[in-house]
Amino acid sequence: MNSELIIALDAMGGDNAPEIVVEGAKIARERYPSVRYLLFGDEAKVAPLVAQHAQLTGVTTVHHTDQAISGEDKPAQAVRRGRDSSMGLAIQAVREGDAVVAVSAGNTGALMALSKIMLRTLHDIDRPALASLMPTLRGESVMLDLGANVECSEENLIQFAVMGAVFARSVLGLARPRVGLLNIGVEELKGNDEVKAAGRRLRDAPLPMEFAGYVEGDGIGAGDFDVVVTDGFSGNVALKTAEGTAKLIYGLLKQVSAANFLTRLGLFIGRQGLNALRDHLDPQNHNGAVFLGLNGLVVKSHGGASASSFASAIGVAADMARHDLINAIHEDLKNFGGGEELPAAVSAE
Amino acid sequence: MNSELIIALDAMGGDNAPEIVVEGAKIARERYPSVRYLLFGDEAKVAPLVAQHAQLTGVTTVHHTDQAISGEDKPAQAVRRGRDSSMGLAIQAVREGDAVVAVSAGNTGALMALSKIMLRTLHDIDRPALASLMPTLRGESVMLDLGANVECSEENLIQFAVMGAVFARSVLGLARPRVGLLNIGVEELKGNDEVKAAGRRLRDAPLPMEFAGYVEGDGIGAGDFDVVVTDGFSGNVALKTAEGTAKLIYGLLKQVSAANFLTRLGLFIGRQGLNALRDHLDPQNHNGAVFLGLNGLVVKSHGGASASSFASAIGVAADMARHDLINAIHEDLKNFGGGEELPAAVSAE
Repeated sequence: MNSELIIALDAMGGDNAPEIVVEGAKIARERYPSVRYLLFGDEAKVAPLVAQHAQLTGVTTVHHTDQAISGEDKPAQAVRRGRDSSMGLAIQAVREGDAVVAVSAGNTGALMALSKIMLRTLHDIDRPALASLMPTLRGESVMLDLGANVECSEENLIQFAVMGAVFARSVLGLARPRVGLLNIGVEELKGNDEVKAAGRRLRDAPLPMEFAGYVEGDGIGAGDFDVVVTDGFSGNVALKTAEGTAKLIYGLLKQVSAANFLTRLGLFIGRQGLNALRDHLDPQNHNGAVFLGLNGLVVKSHGGASASSFASAIGVAADMARHDLINAIHEDLKNFGGGEELPAAVSAE
Repeated sequence: MNSELIIALDAMGGDNAPEIVVEGAKIARERYPSVRYLLFGDEAKVAPLVAQHAQLTGVTTVHHTDQAISGEDKPAQAVRRGRDSSMGLAIQAVREGDAVVAVSAGNTGALMALSKIMLRTLHDIDRPALASLMPTLRGESVMLDLGANVECSEENLIQFAVMGAVFARSVLGLARPRVGLLNIGVEELKGNDEVKAAGRRLRDAPLPMEFAGYVEGDGIGAGDFDVVVTDGFSGNVALKTAEGTAKLIYGLLKQVSAANFLTRLGLFIGRQGLNALRDHLDPQNHNGAVFLGLNGLVVKSHGGASASSFASAIGVAADMARHDLINAIHEDLKNFGGGEELPAAVSAE
């Protein structure tokens, strides 16, 4: 478990690649001394950056490719032409067992499509989900799906709950995470049929998690739930609405301080605590969305991540790999009643 | 247009009824001198409260009923037994043309169910929607549906867009509101089929509104759109997530000020501007959700509204009535291609 973790990095993905990828790898190596890297990208650009950091020498191998997926590439194009891109090769390294996890700050749709087609879903999972950490009043919670599946069946939601709980056990270190299903508050209409059916079946699940019922949108930030499960449409709306509301409040703060000297002064005097608050809410500090349910681990970093934030995504990747997330998901699904023996190829990984 | 507006009030609905209802009516009467009231509720409790306010004498009639809908009543119970309740009689007054709009702070599900069955939907609307104002960086936007319809067809979304635009013209006073459809950001999956189809048809709508395409969750607070249209599940999630994020930020502020003296001091010094910000975000100050698409106007106040906040809900009701919202919706739907002549009973109202 504490042996070396080899992580494949898409050196060309994201707004500030390859600089922040290499810089982020350096920071993550300081935080997690057991990680080693396979870097995929344009060697002429990447190798000199690696050479600048003594921390990376000896633990980093650069693999050249002159192909890269752009932010504008459609998922279908990525699938057709992207396998030899820096992103495709990083995923390929996971498939071949050369790395335990791949991290990319590139195009989300392309990463999802390539990951699905190259790694395939776990045989007891119908659809993979995108999961991430959200800041709460008590720390962090896991939310999924954040946009991979626009419409979800009862079965999908149950699988998301199981995968989310495994993720919370691994990355948040919780023995028995509290899991909630996102729902709406108007009594007569408590959710659609899928949510209600999934809720009924999760209530008695014999799993290392506590299914705590329904959570409404205002319960996400309260942190009463460690895992919030929903379909990809609502999850994406909730994630972005939360980010947008934080931006709204910062924007209003600017407006009032521009108009009111005492408020400006007060915010200046109080800046130390206010900056800590801002850091806690900053999506950069909760970086690392995870594709759960694939036959291999893939982490998506924000495209505009800073080096430190990219290092956080590498940290999420390392945590998942260390906790053998894929086998844990499989084990829980088997106990829930849906799974079977894992194929040898995955068990061996 | 500037003649008297008779408003029916459910005097027994909400956490602090009938006190805040009567107090709110007094405040609203000061703000909108053309309103008169029909109050429905327990006369022994309501009449003495009315008598305390000179502003209400002569413009208020109390109609006695000893029945009231409780917060626990299921919508089906409300429909079976609630027609003679204070809520049912307020809606009845609208149906009979004795009042132009009803306002209640009572049980949402019951109010929706009773309104639907007693007023019926406009004949060119398939399903009514719940709409409300949301605070933004630029002021306020309208969002709908907030929970009346868990799943929505293309046709529903189009009707919501038309009704939301009429609401924005009436209550926000905009000549040509910018309308957006809530959607998610992952390119390949830009929304479900209903959203995409509604978007295509709204693009060329010959209406006094500007259809400005898709809006993501973080665009709501930015205020780039005057009307945000979505299904009731996502809308409710977005509304509550926004409220929850604001609460999260206030909660974190408390934590940091408890731990950091300078932050505590700074917040004290800056309190004037910060309180203004808080007021702008306070759901109490955006009170008055509207059931759009019924053959009559009904406004839902927050159950825990203060008197001033209940008065805001009365203000929304007065604005809607003054702008003849129902005929405006009908007119726009007709121009969009779906409507026909309005039945005489409604035109006459």
